[in-house]
Amino acid sequence: MSDPVLPRISSPADLKRCSRDELRQLADEMRAFLIDSCSRTGGHIGAGLGVVELTIAMHYVFDTPRDQLVWDVGHQAYPHKLLTGRADRFETLRQCDGLSGFLKRAESPYDAFGAGHAGTAISAAFGMAAARDINGDDFKVAAILGDGALSCGLAYEGLNNAGASDSDFIVILNDNEMSIAPNVGAMHKYLVSVQRNPLYNRLRSRIGELVDGAPGPLAAAGALVRKWEESVKNFLTPGVLFEEMGFRYFGPIDGHDIDALADTLTAVRALKGPRFVHVITQKGKGFPAGEHGEKWHALPPGHDPATGKLRLGTKTPAYTDVISQGLVELGAMVPELAVITAAMPSGTGTSAFGKAYPRRFFDVGIAEGHAVTFAAGLATQGIRPVCAIYSTFLQRGYDNVIHDCAIQHLPVVFAMDRAGMVGEDGPTHMGLYDIAYMLAVPGMTVAAPSSATEMLAVLRASMTHEGGPFSLRYPRAAAPDHPPTITEVEPAPVGTWTVPRHGSEVAILAVGTMVAAALEAAEALAVEGLSVTVVNARYLKPYDAATLDALLAEHRQFLVVEEGSVVNGFGAMMSAVIGKLDPAVKVVAHGVPDSFVEHAPRAVQLARCGLDAVGIAERVRALHSTEAVAG
Amino acid sequence: MSDPVLPRISSPADLKRCSRDELRQLADEMRAFLIDSCSRTGGHIGAGLGVVELTIAMHYVFDTPRDQLVWDVGHQAYPHKLLTGRADRFETLRQCDGLSGFLKRAESPYDAFGAGHAGTAISAAFGMAAARDINGDDFKVAAILGDGALSCGLAYEGLNNAGASDSDFIVILNDNEMSIAPNVGAMHKYLVSVQRNPLYNRLRSRIGELVDGAPGPLAAAGALVRKWEESVKNFLTPGVLFEEMGFRYFGPIDGHDIDALADTLTAVRALKGPRFVHVITQKGKGFPAGEHGEKWHALPPGHDPATGKLRLGTKTPAYTDVISQGLVELGAMVPELAVITAAMPSGTGTSAFGKAYPRRFFDVGIAEGHAVTFAAGLATQGIRPVCAIYSTFLQRGYDNVIHDCAIQHLPVVFAMDRAGMVGEDGPTHMGLYDIAYMLAVPGMTVAAPSSATEMLAVLRASMTHEGGPFSLRYPRAAAPDHPPTITEVEPAPVGTWTVPRHGSEVAILAVGTMVAAALEAAEALAVEGLSVTVVNARYLKPYDAATLDALLAEHRQFLVVEEGSVVNGFGAMMSAVIGKLDPAVKVVAHGVPDSFVEHAPRAVQLARCGLDAVGIAERVRALHSTEAVAG
Repeated sequence: MSDPVLPRISSPADLKRCSRDELRQLADEMRAFLIDSCSRTGGHIGAGLGVVELTIAMHYVFDTPRDQLVWDVGHQAYPHKLLTGRADRFETLRQCDGLSGFLKRAESPYDAFGAGHAGTAISAAFGMAAARDINGDDFKVAAILGDGALSCGLAYEGLNNAGASDSDFIVILNDNEMSIAPNVGAMHKYLVSVQRNPLYNRLRSRIGELVDGAPGPLAAAGALVRKWEESVKNFLTPGVLFEEMGFRYFGPIDGHDIDALADTLTAVRALKGPRFVHVITQKGKGFPAGEHGEKWHALPPGHDPATGKLRLGTKTPAYTDVISQGLVELGAMVPELAVITAAMPSGTGTSAFGKAYPRRFFDVGIAEGHAVTFAAGLATQGIRPVCAIYSTFLQRGYDNVIHDCAIQHLPVVFAMDRAGMVGEDGPTHMGLYDIAYMLAVPGMTVAAPSSATEMLAVLRASMTHEGGPFSLRYPRAAAPDHPPTITEVEPAPVGTWTVPRHGSEVAILAVGTMVAAALEAAEALAVEGLSVTVVNARYLKPYDAATLDALLAEHRQFLVVEEGSVVNGFGAMMSAVIGKLDPAVKVVAHGVPDSFVEHAPRAVQLARCGLDAVGIAERVRALHSTEAVAG
Repeated sequence: MSDPVLPRISSPADLKRCSRDELRQLADEMRAFLIDSCSRTGGHIGAGLGVVELTIAMHYVFDTPRDQLVWDVGHQAYPHKLLTGRADRFETLRQCDGLSGFLKRAESPYDAFGAGHAGTAISAAFGMAAARDINGDDFKVAAILGDGALSCGLAYEGLNNAGASDSDFIVILNDNEMSIAPNVGAMHKYLVSVQRNPLYNRLRSRIGELVDGAPGPLAAAGALVRKWEESVKNFLTPGVLFEEMGFRYFGPIDGHDIDALADTLTAVRALKGPRFVHVITQKGKGFPAGEHGEKWHALPPGHDPATGKLRLGTKTPAYTDVISQGLVELGAMVPELAVITAAMPSGTGTSAFGKAYPRRFFDVGIAEGHAVTFAAGLATQGIRPVCAIYSTFLQRGYDNVIHDCAIQHLPVVFAMDRAGMVGEDGPTHMGLYDIAYMLAVPGMTVAAPSSATEMLAVLRASMTHEGGPFSLRYPRAAAPDHPPTITEVEPAPVGTWTVPRHGSEVAILAVGTMVAAALEAAEALAVEGLSVTVVNARYLKPYDAATLDALLAEHRQFLVVEEGSVVNGFGAMMSAVIGKLDPAVKVVAHGVPDSFVEHAPRAVQLARCGLDAVGIAERVRALHSTEAVAG
């Protein structure tokens, strides 16, 4: 092997000086680098390994950062980071104050648009192209997205808008037949058929059958038919669907062939108008284990780079694992139960339900809005749907929650995993807004269980609740408890709180994950002589008015603690409620401040916001001492 | 003319006994009825007039309400209401306690799914079909949507999901080349090309050219070519795009030909699998003025049924008209300004800007999520985009607001028309959640101007604000003032309040529209000897901490009044803020209670919630007297 190429690439300008052979060598070196580095840091490695050659070719052909490359989602951006001067920071990937796992404008001028959620690239890139045209500039803009993003309505909206324009605009489809989970939907089937048996090929072979074997004079017709065939060929390209959407289609192209990529992209770059380049790649290409599947999507730190096997396991059950098992057991108890996921069967822990009850399980693709309205449709027919969607992704179905579920008072349950701090995924994936956006929805039950057992108790309650839609949130974390099976758990009556610790001075209204932290804080404060009541406010709406009354009779100071935006979350709501009931009572809301939280371990994120036992104890002391001074 | 048919139709069962001639006569009678009735009540008449025959045919062929017909949006549902036993209630259309202007499950068993926003029908109907299959039932499910809804990502997500299934499922496309505004986007162009020059026809005529004129022996090839032509016909149907999406395509069908509709739908109903029926209709068909355009979408009460002309005008400028003019003038001052609408150029008042600056105006179709991310893309290139989207519709772009604008700190301005009560449109269109959903977004400026002049002042401030995204809300109402041109208005500094009335006892923090009502209440209370301060809290976030401090020095009682959900809006936020600053101060939040508000005139809706001068004065009295007693 010749001298390594990768160390010589400090920016895409260096790429342009490489020979094609060097580019091929570079691809191998990049894969080795990424596999080695991610074996220590963890990360979403699968998508990146699939687009090594594509990334090289894009930066080789395009004039970045003047040309704007908009990578969708960001999972596929590791090779892009490697080529744009960030190789030396890979050891800090997804770590506190380290390299982001996603694209980030603040991180590099080569990151034209931040991304974490799928399907935004076409819209954002088309906005850039429109701005370029307003400004009279002439750079190129390309959106690069995975085929999974094509199940996303937003991507379609972008295609629909761009395809009708005459804008100089490029969409690159990185088609690996795999988003996070195996793809679903008609678009996916269409793409597979394009690859395996293009429409044009199907027609051509039929023409062959009819004409080539024809006898005598009819054979003469062959030339004529072939001439006609050419004339209609443009109607029959493999990408007819994209052509009909207004794009000039190129492909499919082997996404691991640097020459094919560089040559096609060079030609495409020189053209004008909306262009669509269809590139076929293999997710996870080059990883030793050589497997493909949902587990390929992301790796936790600590896998063996030689075998791809994980070195570590977790000991306490994660909330996700508990609800996974709970749903399976609930499926037997509640024949009307159906479960919906939006392309996250494993992430949401719903794949086990899908295996047990395939007829009652629906993976609708990356299509959260549809997932919610689809669930509303199910609910009109007596089905009890559970929509298992991360807190951050349900932001995409907010209108559907209000318009299709709440207004019609339909019993759709929203199981919001990843509510609260999400650790290494950072700001794009934070589940910090669901308390605010759910509280505002009329008739919505808003629950935040404090343990795995309670999550199951709330889930059971949701199954018989007749008061309209129902949401429950739980974190990306290990549960504090080992729950029994859901059949052994009593439903948690809607609108009730519990009081796990009775004190006499300050009362903490703790939400979900904050209950354990508040109890720990109360222990510490007891040592200091401060007697603290800890309330498990497991239902935020409706709240437990009777328990609140009882608490007000005995406490003059309340701290409300939640893992969510402090601006207008449960703390603000309770400030208004208590303020109206008894203005002499002091209420302090404690939650996530009004700014975005950067990627770091969950525990660090919580501690930085004072949302751990130490931080809570501090707030209680401050609250108690001001009051003491004031009193 | 024979005896009238309409009076005999009290349910779809009566339809099935009619002859085809009677059905045709019925269509004429229904048009006359709707035109006459809506001339008095107003309403969205255009879409309904276009689907009279389609509605008759649907109920004639399908076994409703057992078969589930899911009408998208609801604008097109007037004929459906007429045929399903609601003729005698049409005089109450869109009036207080009267017939809803949209579909509503509570109103009729024939309204299978409520709708007000576009694009939900496929998802909801496919959910019903899935539930039917789980339950082992065998009824039919059909979603009926306008072509405008096909610009909507949600509709695509539904098609993508349904088309990949083998479900017994029907989509009817009511294609009138016109949603609310003229349609935009590639899908629209595609549909037009299908109608005007189907792919198959284009090919067939070319085959004719080549073969039919051929001499001697080649003519013999004709039969062979025709045979081949048949064999590929299925690839070349006009609906190849829908075929490729997994649907069996039928059409295009003349949507005003009862026989064609009834025969096709009968055949389609008997089949299985995903089917797509493409029906061509004329929006507003039969209305005397015979015009088509955006103004056709809805009529206010009081137009002349003979001429279609409006009888009334408005005297004071509506907020929409003021921002319309303001944006045009701002366009000259700020060359970086661009304006985006999601299929509502007239409703949002942005069409004037579009006429003045076509290169800086973007109508992206019914695609709110895309509109927001597209705006974010524009903003990365130094453009100052204003996204003019109704409060209720921006719920569809919530994730895009957070993920694409706020996290990246991009200066996108959200001009939210129809914020607050929307009157006759009812619950589906209420703008009551934007305060809550915007407050929770880190770094979002949240403004609610109290007059047209102030709206322009806030809009000016938004153009130079460097603190990330910016939202302003204004109602569907006449402004209280006649504003000067925007060039004469000073920008309203971000984060400042004003105090239009100084009093000594209770302070009212009033938001937007509530400022005028609070001032009126204060006048009334002054007569009673109660001295009230009225604060114009025009910026909700950041709030005016200095003014608040000054107020706290002089007031012990605060009423926060807003036209939005009371649960966790500005009142809750200020309860938390003030509670923390000075626990001895009493704060009461007053807003829209936690339930949906039914359609009625805006003034009635506000009065019912106590959000007028009378209601505000009552709350102030109650707040003051409790405190007096407590004190």
